[in-house]
Amino acid sequence: MSATAFDFSSFFPKTLPPAAVRWTGRVKFDFTGGNNDADRLPLEELTAAAEAVLKREGRTMSTYGLHSGPQGYRPLREFLSGKLKADAGIKATADDILITSGSLQALDLVNATLLERGDTVIIEQDCYQGTINRLNRLGVTIIGIPLDGDGMRMDLLSNALDDLKKKGVRAKFIYTIPTVQNPTSTIMPAARREEMLRLAAAHGVPIFEDDCYADLIWSGVRPPALYAMSQNQNVIHVGSFSKSIAPALRVGFIVAPWAVMSRILPLKTDGGSGALEQMVLAEFCVKHFNKHVPALRKGLRAKLETLMESVKEHFGDAAKFDDAQGGIFLWVTLPENVDTQKLYQPALAAGVAINPGAEWSVNKAYGRNRMRLCFASPTHEEIHQGVAALAEVCRREFGVPK
Amino acid sequence: MSATAFDFSSFFPKTLPPAAVRWTGRVKFDFTGGNNDADRLPLEELTAAAEAVLKREGRTMSTYGLHSGPQGYRPLREFLSGKLKADAGIKATADDILITSGSLQALDLVNATLLERGDTVIIEQDCYQGTINRLNRLGVTIIGIPLDGDGMRMDLLSNALDDLKKKGVRAKFIYTIPTVQNPTSTIMPAARREEMLRLAAAHGVPIFEDDCYADLIWSGVRPPALYAMSQNQNVIHVGSFSKSIAPALRVGFIVAPWAVMSRILPLKTDGGSGALEQMVLAEFCVKHFNKHVPALRKGLRAKLETLMESVKEHFGDAAKFDDAQGGIFLWVTLPENVDTQKLYQPALAAGVAINPGAEWSVNKAYGRNRMRLCFASPTHEEIHQGVAALAEVCRREFGVPK
Repeated sequence: MSATAFDFSSFFPKTLPPAAVRWTGRVKFDFTGGNNDADRLPLEELTAAAEAVLKREGRTMSTYGLHSGPQGYRPLREFLSGKLKADAGIKATADDILITSGSLQALDLVNATLLERGDTVIIEQDCYQGTINRLNRLGVTIIGIPLDGDGMRMDLLSNALDDLKKKGVRAKFIYTIPTVQNPTSTIMPAARREEMLRLAAAHGVPIFEDDCYADLIWSGVRPPALYAMSQNQNVIHVGSFSKSIAPALRVGFIVAPWAVMSRILPLKTDGGSGALEQMVLAEFCVKHFNKHVPALRKGLRAKLETLMESVKEHFGDAAKFDDAQGGIFLWVTLPENVDTQKLYQPALAAGVAINPGAEWSVNKAYGRNRMRLCFASPTHEEIHQGVAALAEVCRREFGVPK
Repeated sequence: MSATAFDFSSFFPKTLPPAAVRWTGRVKFDFTGGNNDADRLPLEELTAAAEAVLKREGRTMSTYGLHSGPQGYRPLREFLSGKLKADAGIKATADDILITSGSLQALDLVNATLLERGDTVIIEQDCYQGTINRLNRLGVTIIGIPLDGDGMRMDLLSNALDDLKKKGVRAKFIYTIPTVQNPTSTIMPAARREEMLRLAAAHGVPIFEDDCYADLIWSGVRPPALYAMSQNQNVIHVGSFSKSIAPALRVGFIVAPWAVMSRILPLKTDGGSGALEQMVLAEFCVKHFNKHVPALRKGLRAKLETLMESVKEHFGDAAKFDDAQGGIFLWVTLPENVDTQKLYQPALAAGVAINPGAEWSVNKAYGRNRMRLCFASPTHEEIHQGVAALAEVCRREFGVPK
């Protein structure tokens, strides 16, 4: 190693995101991220699945794509075909499904297939940070539609589409998380889905449906997917096993008509997603998925109750929230004078990580006094302690709670 | 499903690659792709590794990135740190290594970190098709440097760098596969590596070293990596487990100084590479890698001999090639009148898949009568039969062999 290291700085494109900072380890009370409940991981069943599938067909791993071609391990796509039919009313064969490296790669692929710098897209105003960041990075104009207790408001969507029409702008898609919306946890009822499809069809705009939390509805019954309800195949559907099995297993999927799928496939330049994950998941899911998920949901619901109790106990009336109907996060509103982006650092110093609302909304003023608290990963005890610590920091910094 | 399906065609950016065609299944005699020898897959050891690592720490899969942060499973990075030191002289800690979804994702990440439309890069004239395609898609000007039996020619690299300097153009990098070059199978000796490093330093150009075949040298001894020999940390190094263990396990890696690594990390937006693959590989490699690879090499060398014999038997003097010093492919030159791109379709119709040389060279005229034949995946018997079938098609189409 020389004293003068090569200077790469002039080689980076100006559009590159800022440099990462070094990872410094895990946070004691982590209320961020899609991490799941370690105790509910079906470890024995996954281990048995690994042994069984490797023994039976492990040697296919010596071939790219196993023997299933570029869309992913066929038994997993076949499981999904049946599951999506049963749960979400989607009629899709294995040929309509592409296995991806988590739904994050699915987002990247669909965006790359449809978007160019300068395009316009419509999303829910409060929205998954990863989606907002991706769209910003792509140089796309984002129109955020406010939500109510039933998800994206159709009156405001209708207005936005009309406004765009007047300007001669056609949105590239309406992106929605209709089932356990992130971060509001709302579930869009079937009637509103019909209305969204009607508006989308009237304006000639496709829908990009991100259903990655749809397995985690407490009631176990999800509305039919927009993909299933569409009369003219104008929906691209994305899902994931991250929330239902394990996030570190990077397995998601895209369901799309061939006209779109055939344009997505050449953009998946990674030689396929991980075979072992796909094989083990397929083997596991056929036998255990339908038993595993209700048990997971039960555990998550219990953790949500612990979180809601803790927030009530430590924040009192200062924190407002609606009981989430599913998922792994709670969207909490604090008094107007609290800025959760300014709460973030002192909270972290106290060992508590939160998602500031302004990062989860395209309306920064609206998100300013809100925060997303994820409850799947911390234990019940950690939830209690973490919320108590957070309330203490918030009191010190903002005088709230009193 | 409606009679009039939504028309997505006007939504796709014009820069999108052409639509994929549907996968139609496997080819009988497949001499393409990085597929490996199924018989040499260490299946029992991998299965045992899966069981052991899942039992010990499987519950960490409920957390993104396991407990290792965004650069990948730490025990795998630690194994790599030791392996790269022992095999290639690279001094890199686990913090200098990023685990990727195969070296293909590594290529995409490094390209995205350094390249913009209109940039210029230098590569070996005959080069991995996936690299050429990526660079073309990115709108980059490619300068191909011819090779001899020791890899990229330094006199011609020197000329190219001088020419660029005269034009006021600084290449963004020199991309090289120095160890078992794809498709020529050449290995660049240490002295030539020194010369490349000297030229790169003199012209202020970094080197992008793709060493994904480096484990498969018959002698078992690889020259020190350019990364190891560099005096000023101007090399980004990429490698893979696809060739040494199994291609369907999508596990590759990047070694880079933090100044570059910190700009690469924000572009890896997939939530980490597959945990199961990383965990199983780490568990396997610590115990078995050093025993497994020599056995694999022995098997590959035997298949190469079968291939060379078959080509000699069926093509006679019409086919010329140098004995490959490692790897999984043979670069074959046919008489001038043979166009391997035109041989491709009739060969496929006869059940034989080949890589036409024009797709593996930026000098299309040079590649025109050449082809790459991969030998790791077909059995010895399939190699014999497939080459016989290929020679028959070639005779029918081009009168060669006589």
